[in-house]
Amino acid sequence: MRMVDLIEKKRDGKALSQAEIQYIIANYTNETIPDYQMSALLMAIYYEDMTDEEIIQLTLAMAHSGEVIDLSSIEGIKVDKHSTGGVGDTTTLVLAPLVAAVGVPVAKMSGRGLGFTGGTLDKLESIPSFQIEIADEDFIRIVNESKVAVIGQSGDLAPADKKLYALRDVTATVSSIPLIASSIMSKKIAAGADAIVLDVTTGEGAFMKDLTQAKRLAETMVRIGKLAKRQVMAVVSDMSQPLGEAVGNGLEVVEAIETLQGHGPADLLEMCYILGAQMVVLAKRAENLTEARELLEEALTSGRALEKFKEMITNQGGDASVVDQPERLVTAKYQIELPAKEAGVVTKLVANEIGVAAMLLGAGRQTKEDTINYGVGLKLHKKIGDAVAVGESLVTIYADSKEVTEVKERLYKNIVIGASAVEPPLIHDIITE
Amino acid sequence: MRMVDLIEKKRDGKALSQAEIQYIIANYTNETIPDYQMSALLMAIYYEDMTDEEIIQLTLAMAHSGEVIDLSSIEGIKVDKHSTGGVGDTTTLVLAPLVAAVGVPVAKMSGRGLGFTGGTLDKLESIPSFQIEIADEDFIRIVNESKVAVIGQSGDLAPADKKLYALRDVTATVSSIPLIASSIMSKKIAAGADAIVLDVTTGEGAFMKDLTQAKRLAETMVRIGKLAKRQVMAVVSDMSQPLGEAVGNGLEVVEAIETLQGHGPADLLEMCYILGAQMVVLAKRAENLTEARELLEEALTSGRALEKFKEMITNQGGDASVVDQPERLVTAKYQIELPAKEAGVVTKLVANEIGVAAMLLGAGRQTKEDTINYGVGLKLHKKIGDAVAVGESLVTIYADSKEVTEVKERLYKNIVIGASAVEPPLIHDIITE
Repeated sequence: MRMVDLIEKKRDGKALSQAEIQYIIANYTNETIPDYQMSALLMAIYYEDMTDEEIIQLTLAMAHSGEVIDLSSIEGIKVDKHSTGGVGDTTTLVLAPLVAAVGVPVAKMSGRGLGFTGGTLDKLESIPSFQIEIADEDFIRIVNESKVAVIGQSGDLAPADKKLYALRDVTATVSSIPLIASSIMSKKIAAGADAIVLDVTTGEGAFMKDLTQAKRLAETMVRIGKLAKRQVMAVVSDMSQPLGEAVGNGLEVVEAIETLQGHGPADLLEMCYILGAQMVVLAKRAENLTEARELLEEALTSGRALEKFKEMITNQGGDASVVDQPERLVTAKYQIELPAKEAGVVTKLVANEIGVAAMLLGAGRQTKEDTINYGVGLKLHKKIGDAVAVGESLVTIYADSKEVTEVKERLYKNIVIGASAVEPPLIHDIITE
Repeated sequence: MRMVDLIEKKRDGKALSQAEIQYIIANYTNETIPDYQMSALLMAIYYEDMTDEEIIQLTLAMAHSGEVIDLSSIEGIKVDKHSTGGVGDTTTLVLAPLVAAVGVPVAKMSGRGLGFTGGTLDKLESIPSFQIEIADEDFIRIVNESKVAVIGQSGDLAPADKKLYALRDVTATVSSIPLIASSIMSKKIAAGADAIVLDVTTGEGAFMKDLTQAKRLAETMVRIGKLAKRQVMAVVSDMSQPLGEAVGNGLEVVEAIETLQGHGPADLLEMCYILGAQMVVLAKRAENLTEARELLEEALTSGRALEKFKEMITNQGGDASVVDQPERLVTAKYQIELPAKEAGVVTKLVANEIGVAAMLLGAGRQTKEDTINYGVGLKLHKKIGDAVAVGESLVTIYADSKEVTEVKERLYKNIVIGASAVEPPLIHDIITE
């Protein structure tokens, strides 16, 4: 087999066979196939797409290119949740303890990501002493004893995907549905989950700006999950405006605590119930979504979900007392208000631009080497559809410097006030097959 | 400027600007842009094509990526000729002295190529002591004194094209018209020609198997030549069967000598008159093609063209006495006939397969490292349309081994005898604008 012939085959619109895809991934991982041939193939895939059979073979080949975590020693059906990313997306921090509180084992490995704002791992690390690097055996023990642990992804999980992703990033081949789907699913399969709930975000703040494309991605992942003998379902959720009100690491932990205490933002809580109910049903802890939701509501109102969060923090070496003193996580030196310049209704709150504003404060990384400032960020006081009076604060800016002109300008530009607004739905679609 | 953004721009079907193309070629040549980004761009170009403006900018950027030969000290209009390659294509060996004999300066630089059979340089090197490595100043002096020199391409001529071509070869991005056109034209422009006659071959033995594609390539090169202020015309010629009768290096030199003596194959001579007349007109040595052809015919029949060939060999250190003793070039140990197994008319003579048969004898290179056996090759006794009796020789095989079973099988398979044949035309089209 010669790589140049396989590139030509794909370029001419023909499907690659299982053996051909295995050859490509094995030899790319061991560096026999050079980056320059792989990037030509990736661009051909960008144009020619892949059949379901090709995507499943690519997914499996990448999943098995390194370590595959064996979670079989954890009792019960292990359900993982993955979001394609958003701004102010605090769901994992709420969902992990909430779902664990009703008895579903949550053995979650997160990647760090290079988004506008920190990933789940960064948010957790804003809790003093919290450890995300935990050995596999301790991870499994903790989940068996306490039902929940959220840790960093092991270095050798799906190394082919890691190499491919870095290459796609610099060759304009990121936005290809078969490549995105196989990348996500290979990591989830390597991480050992039995069932997977996917949150495919769409809108300005999401990777998939276009709803049709987001649906296609969700459908593709559900199909290939089934072919890989995993139970998979996907929620297509809206990310035209940020989810919840907080954008920033410590601020989002505070928001997660408030949500677990029952007084968080309604949209965030509802999103957690929707995703959580799916997880509970997939884990066979409830017969149907209604029953699952009742279990989750009871876990939340009874305070058991909040206790589970404290337990998770303690198990991972963190200082759980912050749950009772969340103000300790808000360490920014200055809180600066952003007064509305005109009266009306918020018509737009461009999620990715709000994310960039938070990044400019130090809440996210521009390059892999950047360090995150956990204490800074934004708290949104108005969401799309909310009425605003002149001078009323739209956002509180949590900053370590008084000089926030650029941040303010970006926020003013991207919080549009008009006469009337169409509130975006929380969920666009639920895809189960 | 970031290369990833330029790849994305092309991928999305937008045209790259002059500044962007110059940035890409400059930084690819100096190795700032890695091969893996360039190959992704090449594949995007394969799918998206390029505008004329993009192709001319790419051509000029590559032409100026290294040395640009200055032929201004050679008197007269310098006309170059380029063929996109074929099997048994002996035209340059005949054309160079023929055209020079009517006063047109021929300052030709040839590449070595990796075809089934040797390139022009290999053919010339089958002449004892012939030198193809000649310093620029000697090259110019020889052409000024004697009107003709055919030498090897200097190492630093269009280095960007050299790098790009090697990359295209292993990434399935060779067969793209804008990339082929800019590759050929960049070398011709760097080689300093004022006017260029292109022989774009089409059919089984050619790079462009499809006539429509060959015409598109020819038209593209003529257009970009004009934009680059060079006089360019193209002949679209047939290469479904080999040109002439000889396939192999020494054998083709013998055929060139016979043609210059007036008793070579009719198709080869006609092709040389067609291409030569165009060169004479472009060099303004004749008012029109009829007049140009008369000049060429007179140079040939008078023996001046043959004398010019001897002069060219002597000027480049070769032993010109082979012209009077051409049998010295036929050094193969064995001459083996290939008798026809059935009677009829030759209906097919698949050019590329005939080329492979010659390569198997040692007349061409499979890899860059292979050495060529100048003495071996094939002499075709029948061309498409010729009648054949059972037992009559179709081909004489010139070999250094008696064991030629594989060569014979390949020839039998690709010389098809039937009831009646359609003779392919010599020329499909002539494109002047």
